[in-house]
Amino acid sequence: MPPRLSPDIYIQGIRQGDRIILSRAITLIESSLPKDQALASEVIQGILPYIGNSLRIGITGVPGVGKSTFIEAFGNHITSLGKKLAVLTIDPSSQRSYGSILGDKTRMETLVNQPLAYVRPSPSGSSLGGVARSTRQSILLCEAAGYEVIFIETVGVGQSETTVHGMVDFFLLLMLAGAGDELQGIKRGIMEMADAIAITKADGSNIMAARQARASYQNALHLMPPTESGWIPPVHTCSALTGDGIKELWQMLEEYVNLSNQNRFLHKKRQDQNLNWLHETIRQELETAFYQNPSTKQQIPHIEQSISSGEITALSGAQKLLQTYFTHYSTSHRSSDGDS
Amino acid sequence: MPPRLSPDIYIQGIRQGDRIILSRAITLIESSLPKDQALASEVIQGILPYIGNSLRIGITGVPGVGKSTFIEAFGNHITSLGKKLAVLTIDPSSQRSYGSILGDKTRMETLVNQPLAYVRPSPSGSSLGGVARSTRQSILLCEAAGYEVIFIETVGVGQSETTVHGMVDFFLLLMLAGAGDELQGIKRGIMEMADAIAITKADGSNIMAARQARASYQNALHLMPPTESGWIPPVHTCSALTGDGIKELWQMLEEYVNLSNQNRFLHKKRQDQNLNWLHETIRQELETAFYQNPSTKQQIPHIEQSISSGEITALSGAQKLLQTYFTHYSTSHRSSDGDS
Repeated sequence: MPPRLSPDIYIQGIRQGDRIILSRAITLIESSLPKDQALASEVIQGILPYIGNSLRIGITGVPGVGKSTFIEAFGNHITSLGKKLAVLTIDPSSQRSYGSILGDKTRMETLVNQPLAYVRPSPSGSSLGGVARSTRQSILLCEAAGYEVIFIETVGVGQSETTVHGMVDFFLLLMLAGAGDELQGIKRGIMEMADAIAITKADGSNIMAARQARASYQNALHLMPPTESGWIPPVHTCSALTGDGIKELWQMLEEYVNLSNQNRFLHKKRQDQNLNWLHETIRQELETAFYQNPSTKQQIPHIEQSISSGEITALSGAQKLLQTYFTHYSTSHRSSDGDS
Repeated sequence: MPPRLSPDIYIQGIRQGDRIILSRAITLIESSLPKDQALASEVIQGILPYIGNSLRIGITGVPGVGKSTFIEAFGNHITSLGKKLAVLTIDPSSQRSYGSILGDKTRMETLVNQPLAYVRPSPSGSSLGGVARSTRQSILLCEAAGYEVIFIETVGVGQSETTVHGMVDFFLLLMLAGAGDELQGIKRGIMEMADAIAITKADGSNIMAARQARASYQNALHLMPPTESGWIPPVHTCSALTGDGIKELWQMLEEYVNLSNQNRFLHKKRQDQNLNWLHETIRQELETAFYQNPSTKQQIPHIEQSISSGEITALSGAQKLLQTYFTHYSTSHRSSDGDS
């Protein structure tokens, strides 16, 4: 890891759009060392006046849906409009090696070479909570660096979609046309989180199937409860190969921004997301302190066993563990995150 | 409140199917007094060998869908097959008066008068966490009393559906035929939790609309990801008035039980639900200790204000609160739930 800089150097570098400094600042906030976290807090505090001016877009879809090529095509369109774009990835399940981090970067070759685009691969091997924390802060750093559109890419198969949904303005679900098999990998509930669905690979012999899929999903979404914003999630088809439908997706996002600025929904959504972030962080830290406590940790397997075999209820198991925790608490709690 | 009994009296009474004792035991587990909770733990521990032999069915739908009349019609069919049925209600939002508890009971007049049915209204004025805890334990008490089918009714507009979904074998969503307006009250995500949808009030001039709605929802569900159990959620129409479709719903439940016993899914689901209950209880108790802590409590409004106005990030706000909590912790933590 490169040596640490002073908070002011980070802040100035970020503000001047220096990508090297931005990358080093993101590396800093990804660090779990208490010293780094304290420094990261100062940097974040310093850039707070310059955040919030981007459109934050979550993009998800199962492997095979063509997420990278889609992001590349869509990203190139956005930069062609003169807009600065940052691409962040959230993928807590992957234990990426250094090699595959490179792989991740080269996935989006043309985008990486765009002067207006900044691509940052996923931090490696962390818990979802850790990755979420880094990503939320990376968004702020990118905003302070002047990025106007931020993609947060996630993999479409697990809990991370809910997490990403909680930090973006717009949640885009990529789907394949087909007989339903493509849904195997998508977790139930994700479709109802989508602000739009884009059917990818709508080109060549696949066009008819994509159009049929669009009609079906449009009907399905129509049957779902309306969103809080009053926005009716549309279904688009697009092709990264031919470029069809890409422009229309960006127009759709502009419509969304207009609507949700007009009715103040975007402002409210971000305020709610911030308060959720507060309480979510508290929950995670309380649980970490509990589950990392040595006395608690030791008892859990036995308690879980007794519950699974029906000897005790989950409630009485929880009460036993909590009693242990609160009794053994005073000497052993962690302090690494208390130094903000 | 009637005087408390000894654990053995509760246990024997419940096992003998004594409704008065069962009701008093449920009242006991609903109590938040530490002494009552300790006694409740003993009762629950005593009935553990006799639990698990029911089909637990969650039933939800917005007000106006005809939930009470549906439950009455469906319940009467089930008791007509010679099966013992218990109906529990989970509705944390309502602050029911004694008067409306009576109202709740008389809602299901014919069912209340069935010797094979037991109807228990919702506990009044608690948090969702408290209501969930009571209901989970009430299910166990009803099972020990020999009830073979248990309905857990919920109101269809909020967080309680997710909670109920986490404690039942089967989740049934009631819907009205119509142009989509009926969806206004349903929270997004609930449709994807459903193991089946029943379109109610399919009678008279409403039959055609109900059949059309069935076809539409069937298509919509078909587009959703498959359930973990391999079960394909069907859509039925029914009428509490004419009785049409009621018998078929019970046959569907029998099919579900057959399938999920065969593939062992039901066993796995219950084990998972029990472990979730463990960790959920731990989370709730940790949060209660945190948010009830006087020093924490005092700071929260100020911190939330600073976050909303953009002075600090949610992360740094959380760190401040956690530092206060962990510093002031040792003398002030609660002990009311540690005595299992």
